[in-house]
Amino acid sequence: MTVDLTFEDGLIPAIAHDAESGRVLMFAYASPEAVERTQETGLAHYYSRSREELWQKGASSGHVQHVEEIRVDCDSDALVYEVEQEGGACHTGYESCFHRTVETVERTESTVEVSTAETGEQLFDPEEVYE
Amino acid sequence: MTVDLTFEDGLIPAIAHDAESGRVLMFAYASPEAVERTQETGLAHYYSRSREELWQKGASSGHVQHVEEIRVDCDSDALVYEVEQEGGACHTGYESCFHRTVETVERTESTVEVSTAETGEQLFDPEEVYE
Repeated sequence: MTVDLTFEDGLIPAIAHDAESGRVLMFAYASPEAVERTQETGLAHYYSRSREELWQKGASSGHVQHVEEIRVDCDSDALVYEVEQEGGACHTGYESCFHRTVETVERTESTVEVSTAETGEQLFDPEEVYE
Repeated sequence: MTVDLTFEDGLIPAIAHDAESGRVLMFAYASPEAVERTQETGLAHYYSRSREELWQKGASSGHVQHVEEIRVDCDSDALVYEVEQEGGACHTGYESCFHRTVETVERTESTVEVSTAETGEQLFDPEEVYE
C-alpha cells in the first residue's frame, strides 16, 4: 500500500521511540528531506525549526539515533522513528527529553503552570558534550 | 520545580504511550483545558482540531485511556501521556495508530510517497464500535 505523507507548514511530527527500552525519547519535526535522509542513511534526521535547517540528530554530540524502522500513523500525518539511541537523546544529558513527571496542573487565563518531579537519570554532562 | 507549558496556536503535542507494552499508541494535540481535565479525571483528553472541540478519548467508543502519568519534555512544549488503554487506540481497530511500517520513501517536488506494510493486529471491528 502506498500513501502520501501529510506535511503541515512543510513539516510532519516525528516521535523518537527507543526500540529496546520502549520509552519515548523525544519529539521533533521532520521535513520531506529529513524523512528521505532518514530512510536512506538509517540515521534519524529532523528539521530544526529554531535553526531553520535539516538536522541529523547527534551530528555534533555524537548521540546519533540508528533507525530500525519508521512507522506512520493511520492519518499519515505523524511518524515514529524506532531507534537505537547512542548516548542520551536529550541535550540536558538525560536518556529521554521526557524526564519530568507532572505532579500538579494550575490553569490560569493565559498559562498552564505545572509542577514537575525529575524521574530520569542523567547519562552525561551536557557541558562536556556541547561546547 | 514549576514550569509554564508552551502552547502553539493554543495547543501542545500529546503522545499517548502504553505504560505496559511500551508502544506509542497515538499522536494528538491538547488544549489547556484538555491538560487540566486529563490531570483532574485521570482520563486522557485532547483537542480535536477537525471538530474544534475538547475530546475525551473513548467517550463514544468506550476505548478510554487511563492516564497513569503525564510527562513533559525539556522544552515544556510536548507531553507524553502514560496510559492504560482500554480496547484499541486507533479508530481503524488497531491497538496503535502507528500500525504501518514504512518500506520505501519516494520524494517528488510536492509529495513524499511511502509504501507501507501492516504490522499490527486488528483488535476490533470499527464498524461495530463507531456506528
